[in-house]
Amino acid sequence: MKKLIKGLREFKANYVSTHQELFEQLSQGQKPRVLFVTCSDSRVDPNLITQADLGELFVIRNAGNIIPPFGATKGGEGATIEYAVQALGIRQIIVCGHSHCGAMKGLMKLHSLRDEMPLVHDWLKYAEATRLLVKEHYTQYKGEELLEILTAENVLTQIENLRTYPVIRSKLYQGQLKIYAWIYNIEKGEVLAFDPETHAYVLPQSQLKSDDTDERRLKEEFLNGNN
Amino acid sequence: MKKLIKGLREFKANYVSTHQELFEQLSQGQKPRVLFVTCSDSRVDPNLITQADLGELFVIRNAGNIIPPFGATKGGEGATIEYAVQALGIRQIIVCGHSHCGAMKGLMKLHSLRDEMPLVHDWLKYAEATRLLVKEHYTQYKGEELLEILTAENVLTQIENLRTYPVIRSKLYQGQLKIYAWIYNIEKGEVLAFDPETHAYVLPQSQLKSDDTDERRLKEEFLNGNN
Amino acid sequence: MKKLIKGLREFKANYVSTHQELFEQLSQGQKPRVLFVTCSDSRVDPNLITQADLGELFVIRNAGNIIPPFGATKGGEGATIEYAVQALGIRQIIVCGHSHCGAMKGLMKLHSLRDEMPLVHDWLKYAEATRLLVKEHYTQYKGEELLEILTAENVLTQIENLRTYPVIRSKLYQGQLKIYAWIYNIEKGEVLAFDPETHAYVLPQSQLKSDDTDERRLKEEFLNGNN
Amino acid sequence: MKKLIKGLREFKANYVSTHQELFEQLSQGQKPRVLFVTCSDSRVDPNLITQADLGELFVIRNAGNIIPPFGATKGGEGATIEYAVQALGIRQIIVCGHSHCGAMKGLMKLHSLRDEMPLVHDWLKYAEATRLLVKEHYTQYKGEELLEILTAENVLTQIENLRTYPVIRSKLYQGQLKIYAWIYNIEKGEVLAFDPETHAYVLPQSQLKSDDTDERRLKEEFLNGNN
Amino acid sequence: MKKLIKGLREFKANYVSTHQELFEQLSQGQKPRVLFVTCSDSRVDPNLITQADLGELFVIRNAGNIIPPFGATKGGEGATIEYAVQALGIRQIIVCGHSHCGAMKGLMKLHSLRDEMPLVHDWLKYAEATRLLVKEHYTQYKGEELLEILTAENVLTQIENLRTYPVIRSKLYQGQLKIYAWIYNIEKGEVLAFDPETHAYVLPQSQLKSDDTDERRLKEEFLNGNN
Amino acid sequence: MKKLIKGLREFKANYVSTHQELFEQLSQGQKPRVLFVTCSDSRVDPNLITQADLGELFVIRNAGNIIPPFGATKGGEGATIEYAVQALGIRQIIVCGHSHCGAMKGLMKLHSLRDEMPLVHDWLKYAEATRLLVKEHYTQYKGEELLEILTAENVLTQIENLRTYPVIRSKLYQGQLKIYAWIYNIEKGEVLAFDPETHAYVLPQSQLKSDDTDERRLKEEFLNGNN
Ligand SMILES: [Zn+2]
Ligand SMILES: [Zn+2]
Ligand SMILES: [Zn+2]
Ligand SMILES: [Zn+2]
Ligand SMILES: [Zn+2]
Ligand SMILES: [Zn+2]
Repeated sequence: MKKLIKGLREFKANYVSTHQELFEQLSQGQKPRVLFVTCSDSRVDPNLITQADLGELFVIRNAGNIIPPFGATKGGEGATIEYAVQALGIRQIIVCGHSHCGAMKGLMKLHSLRDEMPLVHDWLKYAEATRLLVKEHYTQYKGEELLEILTAENVLTQIENLRTYPVIRSKLYQGQLKIYAWIYNIEKGEVLAFDPETHAYVLPQSQLKSDDTDERRLKEEFLNGNN
Repeated sequence: MKKLIKGLREFKANYVSTHQELFEQLSQGQKPRVLFVTCSDSRVDPNLITQADLGELFVIRNAGNIIPPFGATKGGEGATIEYAVQALGIRQIIVCGHSHCGAMKGLMKLHSLRDEMPLVHDWLKYAEATRLLVKEHYTQYKGEELLEILTAENVLTQIENLRTYPVIRSKLYQGQLKIYAWIYNIEKGEVLAFDPETHAYVLPQSQLKSDDTDERRLKEEFLNGNN
Repeated sequence: MKKLIKGLREFKANYVSTHQELFEQLSQGQKPRVLFVTCSDSRVDPNLITQADLGELFVIRNAGNIIPPFGATKGGEGATIEYAVQALGIRQIIVCGHSHCGAMKGLMKLHSLRDEMPLVHDWLKYAEATRLLVKEHYTQYKGEELLEILTAENVLTQIENLRTYPVIRSKLYQGQLKIYAWIYNIEKGEVLAFDPETHAYVLPQSQLKSDDTDERRLKEEFLNGNN
Repeated sequence: MKKLIKGLREFKANYVSTHQELFEQLSQGQKPRVLFVTCSDSRVDPNLITQADLGELFVIRNAGNIIPPFGATKGGEGATIEYAVQALGIRQIIVCGHSHCGAMKGLMKLHSLRDEMPLVHDWLKYAEATRLLVKEHYTQYKGEELLEILTAENVLTQIENLRTYPVIRSKLYQGQLKIYAWIYNIEKGEVLAFDPETHAYVLPQSQLKSDDTDERRLKEEFLNGNN
Repeated sequence: MKKLIKGLREFKANYVSTHQELFEQLSQGQKPRVLFVTCSDSRVDPNLITQADLGELFVIRNAGNIIPPFGATKGGEGATIEYAVQALGIRQIIVCGHSHCGAMKGLMKLHSLRDEMPLVHDWLKYAEATRLLVKEHYTQYKGEELLEILTAENVLTQIENLRTYPVIRSKLYQGQLKIYAWIYNIEKGEVLAFDPETHAYVLPQSQLKSDDTDERRLKEEFLNGNN
Repeated sequence: MKKLIKGLREFKANYVSTHQELFEQLSQGQKPRVLFVTCSDSRVDPNLITQADLGELFVIRNAGNIIPPFGATKGGEGATIEYAVQALGIRQIIVCGHSHCGAMKGLMKLHSLRDEMPLVHDWLKYAEATRLLVKEHYTQYKGEELLEILTAENVLTQIENLRTYPVIRSKLYQGQLKIYAWIYNIEKGEVLAFDPETHAYVLPQSQLKSDDTDERRLKEEFLNGNN
């Protein structure tokens, strides 16, 4: 605690005093462009890794960057999503998993959590689609490799869940909202982004390009098949 | 009741006696190929309109052919879907709305239901995405026309919800499962099927063709946009 | 799918074209007389077995023809019941189980479902009264015979649950609503109906007669004892 | 508080000292014969009005002597009922309403409670069947008289709810459990008991007699009609 | 039952007839000063042990004198608390556990209850804080002694839960409401009360004194530490 | 998005490359000392304001820094708290509100949110104790001033809720866990911390001191009174 309280003083002395205009402006209200959903993990700092300024990222953080489907809980995720889209007018959402995620490790040994950490056990129910998918389609993988696959697929599962929220479905309609799937690699300090065209995680430059070709995309993927 | 009980006798006397082999076979177990989700409406009879035999369609029926997202209720929809896919090995799901649907009419005057039919009111929460989408994007429509749009979009909303079930997400992966969106027109006795390529409801012949071209479909539709 | 799509065409070509008047009339609205609650099983077709016309049966179907007690879920069963009674004015309800029911088989080996099919496991909670009753009172039975008893008792359990819905309790008062318990035998194509006088399932003719003697029935069964 | 603490001393000095044998015996365990469900109202004291000794009545008390249907809440009512029947072997249950009940008054002006006392409002949902029944069948009544009818019918509603619990349904089967409906009149200090034969509340003497004739009761009341 | 019905008669003949004025007054309305929350146990009789008159104690009783946190269930506890504080203006609450409590014994062997008494198992979730606290801090205790500790700590756990209700938190603010923790010893017929100053259960005389010194109490206990 | 993706590159080029050792070490696992619960607001950046390094803060963020009571939702808050305390061994928790909070503004006009943002409306139920307390005790305040009080009291409400979690209650016992209430002032870039001794928000230096005197604190605050 002493270190944090010292940090508060330093922040005020060094940062605040040199960014007076920014703080003046922030006191008028927030106009974030992006909703950033990520894990509570202490090694993930959304503002640092994107070098975003104060006021740019509206942030949801919980264990495993999980978004329960609409109606499934009365937790903070749904309310915060609704607030972001409806009250703040946010039109870009990033769901960002990360390597070495403790929640994803928990998903690999779900049964042992039932008694040990019952709330975590129940919470991982909303990643059950990830667990089942990986169990049925990646039987040949283990350990670290399996964890990576689980983490990558889970971001996509959570985006499926996200799509069931009324405000999301309505804004996705006619392309008013964009959703991005990211994985942050803790040891490299690097982000990979999911590329729907190749169905693979790639460096986010390609993400930028693909934004430009949105109009030409075909619309047939919905009912039968991969995501 | 008298008419129905008379019907039971006729069924046994005329139908059962002339289909002995079928009944023999059905007593061995069921092997339905299709899960058919439709409204409770008395004017919709899945077996009749598809001319399916006994044993071909596994059927879920409720007011509005609604499928709450995974985890949202403890109702029969999720359990029945899980049973269909996991226990029966079903790999084709039809979600079928219909014209003149009372549940969709209810969705158009949701507030008035709060006191009058509270359970219906709460149930329509799982069609809230439909209501909001139509409210935000079809402001120029009214009456019958609006009801048609609502009904058509609602089938797609319910398919979004359906996709959050673990068994569904896992089987959709690599295209092991197909989901079809249908609308049954009560006065014409005719079905239109949603065509993901043109994003329109069309005669189901095109549906057959599009099945053949599944392999060539592009996979980019997922994150940013229309369905 | 091809067979079903062909079926749609046949239906239109043969059935619709020869029943023009019926379809004309159905487009005016539905006036079903009966709410028919039955299993999703592909071998049960309510309209076929009762030889009912389009427009006669309002239908709920889920795995195990289960009706959770009022307030227990936010699923479709309660809302559809409320709509049937309140909006459509239906005053006759049939709850129809069937032989060889997969859900009832699941109830016999409930524990094994917990991990394998968790949603089915949780859903069968609303048939727990059936399971306990049969376990405590039919210890000498096994296999097929036990399954038959379970199926028969479960229809009565579900009717107990049904009685807790406000619209049901209010209409049962002063005999404005009637509830019938049926079992459909898949191999014989035959229905047996529960007879409250003899507390046994019998051919539904007796059901008809007992309707006529309703007025003379004594009202003492409620608090202490069998059903 | 001072009065109560003085009461504790008096109780020990006067009652405990003169009932040593009873307290010795109670420390061995409880063997209550009756589960008594009644309102939290300060004017209702189950032990006093039945002159029951310590150790005779297992008691549930909440606002309105309400028993939510099985599965509807995770509150204490269901667990306590299960414990009473399963762990203590209780086979007699009294559900006891009372005149001038504040909860029943609340039910008469339900809407005004939504903001003022939201938890009470939501709790009264489990008496909604009572409210609807009385609204539909007793339109000519008002004020005190309506309150009396509401109170009397509500006890029966709660017994309907009680019947959905697995342990209750199983013990009711073959008459192993008896349920009694009572109304306690606060100003007269008098109890009336529901008589299923005449469908009226009567002095509980008749209750004693009707117990003797249980075997001769007909079993036809269940499906079609009054309770 | 015969004994109870005889008791009703005795009550009317002896008690009511000699307390006419009291009954007259009670029919005007209730003005209880205290909400008494205790176990359903047949050996605990709140009015008897405090020698309270009819009209003095508003009573909640369930297995284990448990109060789920605000929002955790839709059971009767929260509604009854809200009614007591908001409608009746009660400003003193006693939560009273007792020795030899069956619910607390259940908490000591929680796992064995999962199948045997599932509702009791789930209900004890709201005493999980008690179980964990005792498991982590009282490893050296067993049997009777452990049960005593569990019982004593559980009353404090339930008071923590009680503090989350809006009406409670608002009235606690500025000391408008007082909460007392009691343990009733069944074999001695004696109550001990929790003394926050010494963090021990003591004879309730000290409770009286501590009331007088309320104003001088320091307000620092909240965030960091023991209760 | 382009700005953020550019940020990712800068972060890797400038920050990661100059902190190789830190990243090496973080890939071994996280050992955060503090759980930091704060609002999703884009103007609040926990790591920046405390000048904490990567790996130091485990973070929960949602609209309004709300923590539903134990058992009240199946959302991420409880699971993440459990994981922090049980799996990571965290023993210090900061709940940090902030000035100009949109969620707190919503709490001031709760009714208007019911239709407009139903999920936010329902989520604010867990701040209802704050709303009621302020409504009943701060009638003379309005606008900005009222918002400040609401925000300050809400952090304390959420700490009450936090205390109901089993892992929290168990670790609070014997002072193994500390909870801090902070308010971040957006325009000043300054934090005030709640001081339980004076029951006021003060500069966090006093917080440091009060930590040293923990042992001497009296333990009487729990049952009767202020927090
Ligand atoms: Zn993580
Ligand atoms: Zn319909
Ligand atoms: Zn079946
Ligand atoms: Zn009452
Ligand atoms: Zn007890
Ligand atoms: Zn905020």
